[in-house]
Amino acid sequence: MKGNSAVYAGTFDPITFGHCDIVERALHIFDSLVIAVAEGNKSGGVFSVAERVSLVEQSLAGFADRVRVEAFSGLLVDYAKKRGMSVVVRGLRAVSDYEYESQMAMTNRQLSPDLETIFLMTSWKYSFVSSSTVREVARNAGDVSSLVPDAVTKALMRRFPCQK
Amino acid sequence: MKGNSAVYAGTFDPITFGHCDIVERALHIFDSLVIAVAEGNKSGGVFSVAERVSLVEQSLAGFADRVRVEAFSGLLVDYAKKRGMSVVVRGLRAVSDYEYESQMAMTNRQLSPDLETIFLMTSWKYSFVSSSTVREVARNAGDVSSLVPDAVTKALMRRFPCQK
Amino acid sequence: MKGNSAVYAGTFDPITFGHCDIVERALHIFDSLVIAVAEGNKSGGVFSVAERVSLVEQSLAGFADRVRVEAFSGLLVDYAKKRGMSVVVRGLRAVSDYEYESQMAMTNRQLSPDLETIFLMTSWKYSFVSSSTVREVARNAGDVSSLVPDAVTKALMRRFPCQK
Amino acid sequence: MKGNSAVYAGTFDPITFGHCDIVERALHIFDSLVIAVAEGNKSGGVFSVAERVSLVEQSLAGFADRVRVEAFSGLLVDYAKKRGMSVVVRGLRAVSDYEYESQMAMTNRQLSPDLETIFLMTSWKYSFVSSSTVREVARNAGDVSSLVPDAVTKALMRRFPCQK
Amino acid sequence: MKGNSAVYAGTFDPITFGHCDIVERALHIFDSLVIAVAEGNKSGGVFSVAERVSLVEQSLAGFADRVRVEAFSGLLVDYAKKRGMSVVVRGLRAVSDYEYESQMAMTNRQLSPDLETIFLMTSWKYSFVSSSTVREVARNAGDVSSLVPDAVTKALMRRFPCQK
Amino acid sequence: MKGNSAVYAGTFDPITFGHCDIVERALHIFDSLVIAVAEGNKSGGVFSVAERVSLVEQSLAGFADRVRVEAFSGLLVDYAKKRGMSVVVRGLRAVSDYEYESQMAMTNRQLSPDLETIFLMTSWKYSFVSSSTVREVARNAGDVSSLVPDAVTKALMRRFPCQK
Repeated sequence: MKGNSAVYAGTFDPITFGHCDIVERALHIFDSLVIAVAEGNKSGGVFSVAERVSLVEQSLAGFADRVRVEAFSGLLVDYAKKRGMSVVVRGLRAVSDYEYESQMAMTNRQLSPDLETIFLMTSWKYSFVSSSTVREVARNAGDVSSLVPDAVTKALMRRFPCQK
Repeated sequence: MKGNSAVYAGTFDPITFGHCDIVERALHIFDSLVIAVAEGNKSGGVFSVAERVSLVEQSLAGFADRVRVEAFSGLLVDYAKKRGMSVVVRGLRAVSDYEYESQMAMTNRQLSPDLETIFLMTSWKYSFVSSSTVREVARNAGDVSSLVPDAVTKALMRRFPCQK
Repeated sequence: MKGNSAVYAGTFDPITFGHCDIVERALHIFDSLVIAVAEGNKSGGVFSVAERVSLVEQSLAGFADRVRVEAFSGLLVDYAKKRGMSVVVRGLRAVSDYEYESQMAMTNRQLSPDLETIFLMTSWKYSFVSSSTVREVARNAGDVSSLVPDAVTKALMRRFPCQK
Repeated sequence: MKGNSAVYAGTFDPITFGHCDIVERALHIFDSLVIAVAEGNKSGGVFSVAERVSLVEQSLAGFADRVRVEAFSGLLVDYAKKRGMSVVVRGLRAVSDYEYESQMAMTNRQLSPDLETIFLMTSWKYSFVSSSTVREVARNAGDVSSLVPDAVTKALMRRFPCQK
Repeated sequence: MKGNSAVYAGTFDPITFGHCDIVERALHIFDSLVIAVAEGNKSGGVFSVAERVSLVEQSLAGFADRVRVEAFSGLLVDYAKKRGMSVVVRGLRAVSDYEYESQMAMTNRQLSPDLETIFLMTSWKYSFVSSSTVREVARNAGDVSSLVPDAVTKALMRRFPCQK
Repeated sequence: MKGNSAVYAGTFDPITFGHCDIVERALHIFDSLVIAVAEGNKSGGVFSVAERVSLVEQSLAGFADRVRVEAFSGLLVDYAKKRGMSVVVRGLRAVSDYEYESQMAMTNRQLSPDLETIFLMTSWKYSFVSSSTVREVARNAGDVSSLVPDAVTKALMRRFPCQK
């Protein structure tokens, strides 16, 4: 059977309601998903890869039978090849997302022609939510509970205790 | 089984190598595709819906066992519902495509929350090819053979005989 | 007192929930608004200017004491000057809106340096709703009740009786 | 000698200060320019091709020894080939310009690989001026004298006598 | 009275003629403005928050009776709430500005639904001026006097004495 | 003679097939090119300016009689003035390139009105290739040989020996 599994990769630092929305949508198309959490920590990151994997697992507990969460390092195309996956799922929100995403998809296609990237649109409810926005709000002791799952809200509160 | 069929809708006036590229890519993900040719003729159109359906069929003859071509009128969401399809495939090239497509996808989601739109990126080889460009070139007796399948080149030459 | 009235101009063919959202937001900033309905009918329009004025009035009945609806023809800058207004309100949704709107604002500034244009962002709930989308859906007998006020839904159903 | 002449093509309906700005800039790079006025009249056009050629000639009279103005029909790539030109000049203003222009340049490159397109940026003073804006303002009896050369202002006033 | 005061927030490192232009425009709409200078220093910054507040005050001395300059830390939405302000002013230049600004405005709206963001367009004269460009030019001993107020030019020359 | 030489400036860390493509295209318009390699090392850079100059020279050896490679520091406008050059060449790929490039061109025009910037479009084959992508792939031991000239591939393999 074709196309019944796909990779959804990212840094997930932290996972947001926008990511969860994409997972739900992807599960309407694919039987199962591998959530691949990139190890590399960008500047401005908050959680270790182990913490991020754990937060993704807690946030997607409702889909546990169809979603597997893994850390990965190196290039996504190499990871997908090793795991025998041929479809990558990406979420799109704004135009700037699209520009970056299309360049990355084209590079991946060049490096691995058999790996197809498909894009899904995030619900408008979460179209303005990004991990970096969430981190910025949390660092300033703002309320992130409308932007991320409960487990993430709690983890952020532990990380940034009321500093005001 | 989930996600094993999808609709690829458009005016296809005429079908280009860019459209063919998207069909090939979609068939890596889905077992079968319905190519839905919109009846409505935009201003500046060239072929009737019957001609367009026929040109799509000829151009995709190599995938005949997995692709069905149909004309449709009315809203795509209603057509998909009637046919029991839950996934729409769209091709993306430039940023302006993305803006239009994302608005259309959001409207369709509002009208029919169960219909998911997925986007695939056209190969860079065809990322500048559009049906309107093809019509413009053909109207001016230019050579379209690098932009569209053979059947379309021939049909355009019959429609616009060497007028220079 | 400065800035206590502004013009919100457009074709409003028809008024949508997106327009209503902008009116509400503008009324948080200005004491009163003039809704200026452009007479010129673009290709693809549905309602006469008189009908459009009436639909705007019905849709904004709740703000009747602070909103006045008028038809106008000619350039917006001339209309604003004649009416003694110095601020124009515009709603923004997508990037393509912004490009068109910024060019128009710059032209108006060139023609009338004292006329300032301010932009407000439409709620994400309505960020994909446009009058042309509404007309397209209505023409194809789709359900527009989640996109436009009641008065407009009814007017569109009279205009496009169940043609399927 | 390489690169000492180029084609600057367009509809020029009518020529604006933005076009004049691009001509001046191109003459810093090339010894001479051919201004190629496309015959085809788009919907919404105002002047015949003969009128447009004449207005371009009057507007660029100061560069008469280095600029030749010609009408052309058909594809630009065919015209350039016939005239032995290998460089096309285009002006850029907004992002939407860029998207359309890059698609056209790519199509022309496909049809005629030896024809190179170069882009120059219009001065910010004229970055919001377009022929369609000028026509819109003139149709509504607005003052276009800050947007187009004198000859064009006069021609537009004859075409749209004070209709208010 | 509604809408007679607004917050104009930013890093202002340093304030440019583009910022001054927005202040002037905003004062056509609002009776008074609070210029809120964000304390956080981004990488690549030049001036301390105290220096930045002082440079803004010197640059806007002509509007001293209607403009108050303050440093702030934390989230803008919290600052606005504490100060009882309900309108935030932002300047727009390019499309990339718009994307970032619209995401920020949407996030702020989620965090504080009563806070409205309005956008004004910077004059084309300053549409290419950004604080980061100014810092880059100054670091390389270029002439910034056409980009920033006198006080800023002098401060930059003291900070980056003729290093060539 | 006008316009027979131009500057093509950048960080070239490292030079890619996309850069080579622009050089070739520019040599259809100009008799000679100066490739100006900026000394400043951005964060995330890989090669020293001497290494970058050398890699550019090796990669463009086939054009050695018409191309000179130089390191430069400070502002490009100052460098061009000192060298007596009046045209800067830039390559364009995506829309985001265009936004950044147009802002830089406008700033340079403000600082040095006689310096003209012209843009050429990178071949679609290389439209997704950027130096930062190349560095990312090389760092993760991916195969970059389809993205950069041989000399660069070898230099990257020495820099990032098989770390997996």
